[in-house]
Amino acid sequence: MIIQLKQDIPSGQKETLIEKVNGLGYTVTEVKTQVGAYLIGIGKKAFDIRKIGALDGIQDIHIVSDEYKLVSKKWKVKPTSIDLGDGIAIKDGDMAIITGPCSIESEEQIVKVIEHMKENNLSMMRGGVFKPRSSPYAFRGLGMEGLKLWHRLAKEAGIKIVTEVMQVSQIEQMYDYVDVFQVGARNTQNFNLLDELGKVDKAVLIKRGISGTIEELLQSAEYVFSGGNEKLILCERGIRTYEKASRNTLDLNAVPILKSKSHLPVVVDPSHGIGIREFVPQMALAGVMAGADGIIYESHENPDKAYSDGQQTLNFAQSSLLADQIRKIFAMRKTFDLL
Amino acid sequence: MIIQLKQDIPSGQKETLIEKVNGLGYTVTEVKTQVGAYLIGIGKKAFDIRKIGALDGIQDIHIVSDEYKLVSKKWKVKPTSIDLGDGIAIKDGDMAIITGPCSIESEEQIVKVIEHMKENNLSMMRGGVFKPRSSPYAFRGLGMEGLKLWHRLAKEAGIKIVTEVMQVSQIEQMYDYVDVFQVGARNTQNFNLLDELGKVDKAVLIKRGISGTIEELLQSAEYVFSGGNEKLILCERGIRTYEKASRNTLDLNAVPILKSKSHLPVVVDPSHGIGIREFVPQMALAGVMAGADGIIYESHENPDKAYSDGQQTLNFAQSSLLADQIRKIFAMRKTFDLL
Amino acid sequence: MIIQLKQDIPSGQKETLIEKVNGLGYTVTEVKTQVGAYLIGIGKKAFDIRKIGALDGIQDIHIVSDEYKLVSKKWKVKPTSIDLGDGIAIKDGDMAIITGPCSIESEEQIVKVIEHMKENNLSMMRGGVFKPRSSPYAFRGLGMEGLKLWHRLAKEAGIKIVTEVMQVSQIEQMYDYVDVFQVGARNTQNFNLLDELGKVDKAVLIKRGISGTIEELLQSAEYVFSGGNEKLILCERGIRTYEKASRNTLDLNAVPILKSKSHLPVVVDPSHGIGIREFVPQMALAGVMAGADGIIYESHENPDKAYSDGQQTLNFAQSSLLADQIRKIFAMRKTFDLL
Amino acid sequence: MIIQLKQDIPSGQKETLIEKVNGLGYTVTEVKTQVGAYLIGIGKKAFDIRKIGALDGIQDIHIVSDEYKLVSKKWKVKPTSIDLGDGIAIKDGDMAIITGPCSIESEEQIVKVIEHMKENNLSMMRGGVFKPRSSPYAFRGLGMEGLKLWHRLAKEAGIKIVTEVMQVSQIEQMYDYVDVFQVGARNTQNFNLLDELGKVDKAVLIKRGISGTIEELLQSAEYVFSGGNEKLILCERGIRTYEKASRNTLDLNAVPILKSKSHLPVVVDPSHGIGIREFVPQMALAGVMAGADGIIYESHENPDKAYSDGQQTLNFAQSSLLADQIRKIFAMRKTFDLL
Repeated sequence: MIIQLKQDIPSGQKETLIEKVNGLGYTVTEVKTQVGAYLIGIGKKAFDIRKIGALDGIQDIHIVSDEYKLVSKKWKVKPTSIDLGDGIAIKDGDMAIITGPCSIESEEQIVKVIEHMKENNLSMMRGGVFKPRSSPYAFRGLGMEGLKLWHRLAKEAGIKIVTEVMQVSQIEQMYDYVDVFQVGARNTQNFNLLDELGKVDKAVLIKRGISGTIEELLQSAEYVFSGGNEKLILCERGIRTYEKASRNTLDLNAVPILKSKSHLPVVVDPSHGIGIREFVPQMALAGVMAGADGIIYESHENPDKAYSDGQQTLNFAQSSLLADQIRKIFAMRKTFDLL
Repeated sequence: MIIQLKQDIPSGQKETLIEKVNGLGYTVTEVKTQVGAYLIGIGKKAFDIRKIGALDGIQDIHIVSDEYKLVSKKWKVKPTSIDLGDGIAIKDGDMAIITGPCSIESEEQIVKVIEHMKENNLSMMRGGVFKPRSSPYAFRGLGMEGLKLWHRLAKEAGIKIVTEVMQVSQIEQMYDYVDVFQVGARNTQNFNLLDELGKVDKAVLIKRGISGTIEELLQSAEYVFSGGNEKLILCERGIRTYEKASRNTLDLNAVPILKSKSHLPVVVDPSHGIGIREFVPQMALAGVMAGADGIIYESHENPDKAYSDGQQTLNFAQSSLLADQIRKIFAMRKTFDLL
Repeated sequence: MIIQLKQDIPSGQKETLIEKVNGLGYTVTEVKTQVGAYLIGIGKKAFDIRKIGALDGIQDIHIVSDEYKLVSKKWKVKPTSIDLGDGIAIKDGDMAIITGPCSIESEEQIVKVIEHMKENNLSMMRGGVFKPRSSPYAFRGLGMEGLKLWHRLAKEAGIKIVTEVMQVSQIEQMYDYVDVFQVGARNTQNFNLLDELGKVDKAVLIKRGISGTIEELLQSAEYVFSGGNEKLILCERGIRTYEKASRNTLDLNAVPILKSKSHLPVVVDPSHGIGIREFVPQMALAGVMAGADGIIYESHENPDKAYSDGQQTLNFAQSSLLADQIRKIFAMRKTFDLL
Repeated sequence: MIIQLKQDIPSGQKETLIEKVNGLGYTVTEVKTQVGAYLIGIGKKAFDIRKIGALDGIQDIHIVSDEYKLVSKKWKVKPTSIDLGDGIAIKDGDMAIITGPCSIESEEQIVKVIEHMKENNLSMMRGGVFKPRSSPYAFRGLGMEGLKLWHRLAKEAGIKIVTEVMQVSQIEQMYDYVDVFQVGARNTQNFNLLDELGKVDKAVLIKRGISGTIEELLQSAEYVFSGGNEKLILCERGIRTYEKASRNTLDLNAVPILKSKSHLPVVVDPSHGIGIREFVPQMALAGVMAGADGIIYESHENPDKAYSDGQQTLNFAQSSLLADQIRKIFAMRKTFDLL
C-alpha cells in the first residue's frame, strides 16, 4: 500500500495515520523525496480502503502488491521525466543519446569527445573515472582528478556527465561534478550504495545486474526511491547466459516489460550488450524499436587505443552515423501505435 | 577445406581428387546438392593449396577452419536466396513476413487467416499440424488431414506453407503439401531428421535450439547442407535463461552474428521470443533493425480461443498494423549504411 | 486423475467408466503397460471422488495435479525396480554401476572392457553404436554391426547392454541386442521417439535434456509410461550454464528432487556432468551421497586413444578404484537416516 | 610473475628489483601480507628468468600466467590453513563444520544455538547481523548491537563467529567482534570492499557470486590477497540457472576445480545451494565427497519461526544428525585415494 501525503498535512496527522495503518497489521516505512511524501505499508491482511482513504492529510492511496511499489506504474501512470537542467532530460516520448569513452583517459581525449558531441548536437557524456575491474592489477581509472578535469571541460561545453560511483564514500566527493550517478552491473545489489544514493538530489542510472532479473532491477530502484530520490533511470545492458559468441546477451525483452511495469525511463546499452563493435549500431537501433527512451554507447577517437573496452567502442564516424540513424528511426517509431 | 567441383568434371577425376586429398591426411566427405558438388576435407595438417587447386575439375578451393563449412560466409560471400516459387522468396535485402496460427485447427480458421493475409498482401503462412507438446496428454495437432486441407486452401490463394516436421517418417508424406519444412527448437539437434531433410529438394527453416548456441545452429544447418540441400533458413526464437518475466530471452545479438558468419538468410520469431502478445510488435520491429531478413509471428482471428499459444498470438488488427510497420521500418533500414 | 483398473475388469465396464469420466468434463487417455491398465483423466473441474471410486472394475483412484501423473510418487509410493534379468536390477536401495566406453570401437576394445568389468564384478555396460555428433563430419559410430558384435560378447559374459537409440526406425532393429535403450540429452524431447519407446517391453534410461528442467524430464518419462512402458530410469548428466570451467554443470540437486517427486530410479552421469577425467571420481561419489540409485561413467583401456570423450573417460585402474569406493560409500549411506 | 621477497631483503634492493622488472616491460604491484612480501609483475613479453632470479633479496620467482596469481596453486602447492585460534582451523585435510541461523534474532536464540553447538562439539557459528535484502522493506538485521551480544556469548563458549560484512564502513566497527568476515554472493565483485578487507588481519570467507564464474571467484580472492590478507576461504553456494525447482543450482563441480587451481580452502553451503530443508543433508554430504574442506549450513531451534530462510534451515535434531554424518563420511573419504 502506498499512501501519498498532502503537502499541507496537519501537524501530528502523519503519526495518527501511521498508528491507524499499524493497527491494520501493516508495518509502515516513511518516505520523503524531492517531490513527495509517502507512507509505504507492508502487510497481507485485506481491509476496507475507505477506512483510511477518507482521513485528513491523504492525497491518494494505492494498493500495490508487487515487491517494488514506488517505482511501479500501478500508482503512478504518468512517466517520470529526469530533468538534468538546461533543457536536457531523459524521458518517455524523447530519445536520449549518451555517449563517450569507457574510461576517461586524458584532457586531450575529453576534448576530442566533446568536439565530436558538439558536432552531432549530443549533450550527455558517459565515461568512467572509477573503474570496476575483475583483476586487481588492471587500470582502475583516473579518479577524482580525472573527474574534476572532465567536469571543467564538460561544463564549458554545456554537456552533462554520466559516470559510475562504486562506493558510498565516493558519493560526497563526486557530488559537485556529476549530473547522473551510474550504478554499475556489479553494484546493482550493493544495497548500502543504493541507500546512500537515496539521500542525494541527483539523477541515478541503475544498470541491470550481470545476471539480475527484471524484478531485481526494479527492487534496486525501489531502494533509491524509498531512500528519498525519485530521479531514476533503468538500464538494460545484457545478461550473462551460456552463449559466448557475444560478450553478454542483450535482453531487449526487458525494455517493453520494464516500461509496462514502471514509470521510470529505460535506456539500452548496446556496447556492453553485444560487445562487438561492428554490431553495436544494429543493436542500438533494435533497442530504439523495442521501446527504449535512450541509448548509451561507447565512443572514442581511436577505439583500438582505448584503455578499456576498445573492441566494443565506436569511432567518431560510426558514432555520428549512429546518432543520426537513432534519431531517424525514433522519429518513425513515434508515428507508430505501439504500447 | 571446401573443394567446389566443376559441373563438367571429367569422369574418374573426382576419385583422383579424393585420393590426393586423402594423401594430405584429410578425410573427405562428398556433397552433392541441388546446385553444386563439393568435396569437404577434414584435417589439420597444413599444405600448399596450389598442389590441389590447379587440378582439373576444380572450380574453386577454400580453407574454412570453422566446425561448420558449407554454411559459412568464408567461401560463399554472396547471400543465399531461398526461392519458393511464384516470385516469393526469403533472402537478404528483402523482408519476408510469415504469419499464421500456432496450430491449424479447422477449415474455418484457415480460411479466416488466408483472408487476413490476402488483405495485407502476405504470402507465407505458418501453422502446426504436428505439435511437439511437453505433456503427452495435450493436443497434438490435426496431422496429415489438417495439412491436406490447408494445402488445398493455401494453394488456391497463392500462399506458401511453412510447417513443422517432427520425424523422419513424416517427411515423405508431408512433401507434396509443404513449401518450407520447419525444424522446431526441440529438434535442432535431431541429427537423423536433419540428415533426411538433406535429401529433400524443399526449403528448410531451422529454429535455434531451446538452449542452443549460435555455433550449434550453424552446425545443424551444416547437416542439412552436407546431406544435399542448400535451401536453408536460420531462425532466432529466443533461448532459455534464468529470466522468467518472458517466455524465452529473444537473443537479437544472434542476428548480426549469424549474418556475419553465414550466407544463409536469418528470420526472427518474436512470438516465442518474448511470449507476451502486447510486446510482440516491438520485438518484431527490433528484430528488423537487428538485421533480420524476415519475421515469423503468430496470428489468429481470436487469439484467446486458440488451441495453443494464445497468449503470444496477435489478432488480425494487430497483425495488419505490424505488417505495415515492419515494411516501413525495413524501408528505412535499407537507406542506412549497416553491416 | 489416475484410475487404476482391475485385471479382471468386466467386459464393457471400461467404456462405461470412460463415459462417466468424460461426463465430469475430463478427457480420458487409456494406458496399458506391462503391469497395469490405467485411465488418465485430464481436466480441472472439482468433483466428488466417491462418484467414480465405488464403480466396478476400479482398483484405486488418485488425484494427481502435476503435469506428469503416472511417473509421480503421489499415486505410487513404492519405488519402481527395473529388473534386467539374471538378478541384475536398477532400483532404490541398491547401487547400480554402469560403465564402458563412449563409443564401441572394435572387438578388441569390447573384450578388454568386459574383462575389466568381470574383474570388478560389474554387470551393466554402456557404449554408443549410434553417436549423435554436432558436426556431420565426425565419427558416427559402428552402427548395427558394432551392436551385434558387442551383444554376442556381452551375452557370453553375462553383461547387460545400455546403449543410445537415436530414432524410431532403429528401435526394432536394435531390440534383440539391447537391455536398456538410452535416450540421449539431445533427444529428451523427441516426442515421437518417446512415444515409440512406450510400445516396447525393454527398459529405457532417459537423460535430462541439455538444458532441460526437472519437470520436463518427468514429462518425457510420462510419454514413455503413458505409451505403455513402465520400465524407466531417469538420468542426471549435467546442464548447460554460463560456467565454462566444466563441460556441463552437474546438477546434483536434481537427485533428491527427482527421488521425492517420482517412484522411478535415478542415476548420475559424472563423466558428462563435469567432463574432466581427474574429477569424475569425486563427482560420482558426490552423486552417491546426493541419493542416486546408480552411477553411469565412461571407462576405456586407453582413454587418450578413445574415438570420443577421452578427456572424461577413466582408465581401468581408475575405474576399479572408483567402483570400490562407490560401493563403500553407498554401504555407509545405507546406515544413514536420509530421505 | 610472482617474485617472493626474502624477509631480510637489503634496504633499497626492492626498488632496484622493481626497476629491473619494469625494464622488462612489466608493471609491478607490491604486495605485503601477514606472512610474506611479493612483487607481482604483469606483462606479456618473454624473458630469461635467470636475469632476475639470481638477484639479491629474492626467495623465489614463479611464472603464473592466469589472471589470478597469488591465490594460484602454481606457485604455492602447499594448501593454506586458516587458523582461527584456540586450535580451530579451516584447512585441507580437515572438515570444518560451520552452522547457525540465517539472522541473529535475540539473546535467547543465540544461547540455544550455542548450546546445540556445544553438545555436538561444533565451534564455528554463522549468522547475519547485517542482512542484504532485495526489498528495502524487509528485515535488515540487528546490526552492531546484535553482533556485540553474540560476540559476548560466543566468546564465553569458545565459539568462533562467521558473519557477513556488507560495506567498507562496517569493517572497522565489526573488527573486534568477528573471527571470519563473510563476503556475500551479491558483494563478490564489490571491489572496494575486497580492497579494504585486504588491509585487515582477519580471515575472509568469499562466497561465489550469484552468477559468478569460478575464475571470477579466484580473482575476487586475488583482490583481498594482493591487498595484504592471505587468510582466505572460498565458498560454493549455488549459482543462478534456468532451473527453478531449487533455489540455486549447487555447482559441486566447482569444488574439485577450485581445489586444483588454488591453495585456498573451499567450503560448501548446501542451504543456499538447494534451498529446501529436507534435501540439505544429502547436498552437504555430496559436498564432502566432492572434496570440500568444510560445510556451512543454516540451523535454528525452530526453523519455521526464523526471521529469514526458514525453508532451508535445519532444526537441531537434523543438525546433530548431519554433523555426525559429515564426520563419518569425511573419515571414509580420507581413506580414499582422491585428488
